[in-house]
Amino acid sequence: MNTTLTLDEIYAPIRDDLKKLPGLIEQTLLTPNLQIRDIVHYFFSKNGKFLRPALVFFGGGLARSLDRSAHAVSEKHETSLVHLGAACEIFHAATLIHDDIIDSARLRRGIPTLNVKWGPQTAVLVGDFFHDRAMGSIFRYGNEMIVPLFLRAAGEICDGEVHELNEKNNIDLTEATHLEIIRKKTASLLACSLQTGALVWGMEEKQLTALGHFGNAFGMAFQLIDDYLDFMGKEQEFGKFLGGDLEEGVYTLPVIRLLASEDRREAVLLLRDSKNGKRFAALLGLLRKQGALEYALAKAREYVEKARQELLIFPPSVFRTSLEQLADYVLERNR
Amino acid sequence: MNTTLTLDEIYAPIRDDLKKLPGLIEQTLLTPNLQIRDIVHYFFSKNGKFLRPALVFFGGGLARSLDRSAHAVSEKHETSLVHLGAACEIFHAATLIHDDIIDSARLRRGIPTLNVKWGPQTAVLVGDFFHDRAMGSIFRYGNEMIVPLFLRAAGEICDGEVHELNEKNNIDLTEATHLEIIRKKTASLLACSLQTGALVWGMEEKQLTALGHFGNAFGMAFQLIDDYLDFMGKEQEFGKFLGGDLEEGVYTLPVIRLLASEDRREAVLLLRDSKNGKRFAALLGLLRKQGALEYALAKAREYVEKARQELLIFPPSVFRTSLEQLADYVLERNR
Repeated sequence: MNTTLTLDEIYAPIRDDLKKLPGLIEQTLLTPNLQIRDIVHYFFSKNGKFLRPALVFFGGGLARSLDRSAHAVSEKHETSLVHLGAACEIFHAATLIHDDIIDSARLRRGIPTLNVKWGPQTAVLVGDFFHDRAMGSIFRYGNEMIVPLFLRAAGEICDGEVHELNEKNNIDLTEATHLEIIRKKTASLLACSLQTGALVWGMEEKQLTALGHFGNAFGMAFQLIDDYLDFMGKEQEFGKFLGGDLEEGVYTLPVIRLLASEDRREAVLLLRDSKNGKRFAALLGLLRKQGALEYALAKAREYVEKARQELLIFPPSVFRTSLEQLADYVLERNR
Repeated sequence: MNTTLTLDEIYAPIRDDLKKLPGLIEQTLLTPNLQIRDIVHYFFSKNGKFLRPALVFFGGGLARSLDRSAHAVSEKHETSLVHLGAACEIFHAATLIHDDIIDSARLRRGIPTLNVKWGPQTAVLVGDFFHDRAMGSIFRYGNEMIVPLFLRAAGEICDGEVHELNEKNNIDLTEATHLEIIRKKTASLLACSLQTGALVWGMEEKQLTALGHFGNAFGMAFQLIDDYLDFMGKEQEFGKFLGGDLEEGVYTLPVIRLLASEDRREAVLLLRDSKNGKRFAALLGLLRKQGALEYALAKAREYVEKARQELLIFPPSVFRTSLEQLADYVLERNR
């Protein structure tokens, strides 16, 4: 069941749509401003996993496969779908750019962040620019179901991020609060992407809800693994410096778990000893001792299982299979 | 002709709509996130001039007065108009919040900026939140003419601001480039607000274009005076620290004019001598000597004249008069 496929293999059914993405992203972000052009080029010189567009395309494929009346592929719907995929990726990029300012991050996808290379001022504006263009595309290619869905997700992301900022360095942060934060800041856009794709073709309420639940659970697993990799990843493959969350005072699930263990006192001392260059290694030791990293992994596995369950409402199809594979992939990923 | 009216007097014909603004702004920005609520409350504890909503309402009034078929006031249009007014103010607020981060500004409307009070990280996110909510309202209450108009303005603002950032400390900045920057970063939203109001009721192409030209010229005058006040305003009335532009390396029209004069060398030395606490006074002396401040004022006056000319296409009405008065007011304002 858990044969690990590569992302390329999982993406095979949507390969043609994905191929159009770089061109569409470029087109959506076209501007006479030469500096912004340079920055766009730089930012997308390292492509991410295109996870959000992939979800848009899988959602679209799933909805189309269910619609027995759609014998002929509507060109208008196809165009909307790929543009919405590009818009989701650009929207995501905008949040990454602002996140990197907020976290003073130095690396993104293995290259210096915009705030390092062009300064936080320019990065704020370029994030706004990406954001506006993405919104423009969503309004242009979305419909009366997609637009409010998207605006709600945008609001949740913001809300989650403000909340996260507020909980920095809080040694009493609960698991429930933490999970709510990552649901908002990460899972909501993934769920929204999947539903957006489905809504291009239309989908009945019950199935759409299941898709939303899948997206949420999938997103939770995705973020839990991302946070796990901040401790356990290989720096080069992860494309970021390890321990970044800790350095920023962001306590993720392993740390929250450790703080609930008998080693709480020692953990608090280390967390507060921010000038201690060896604290990362010491904390890692405690996390291992308490099985806190394993705990986070198990939680991610639970979410993946939950996500897979949600898909059972759909008849078997190549797209349902892809989503199942994608959920499994998240557990195995290293970047 | 130039009897100086107060803003309250000029706003008399739209007083009822303006009264609804604070409540609508609060409603549009409602969120369960307590910290964001606090920040919303803080930010709007000092109201600005509500210039953009006023333009929306004047544009709406003008269009309605031209539409002979609109005997009965449509409630739906009225609702849209006030919501769009609130949206323009919130959108503007979002740009101010991000601007203040970019300029490391300490005061806004006489109270500490969000970046000072909550830190630049939270300010980035709150700006995004305002931005999203404003966009949401525009899509909800706008129509297929208003939405693209607004997206274009949003793009221009960003573009203008990136350009401004790029030209910081450039002693060879030309007047033409500078004027293009302020057209984009300031005038475009003012023109867009006015046209947005008009488009709620609808307006024929030629008049809509004239309204856009008025908004642009009015916006240019407004920004030129704003920049003039950065040298010549009274700190308390202006609500910001004087000399802020210079401190940030932003050269506005008076400085550009001075740099084109025979005192260029001395001006350059002063501009580069950023640790000299007396350079602001010294530069002010040079600006006065070269009539550079007067030059900027004269330019603003020219734009106001241009703006007034554009209104002649409209039959006399209370709203046309209000716009004329508003243009005159800009020349006399001190905050």
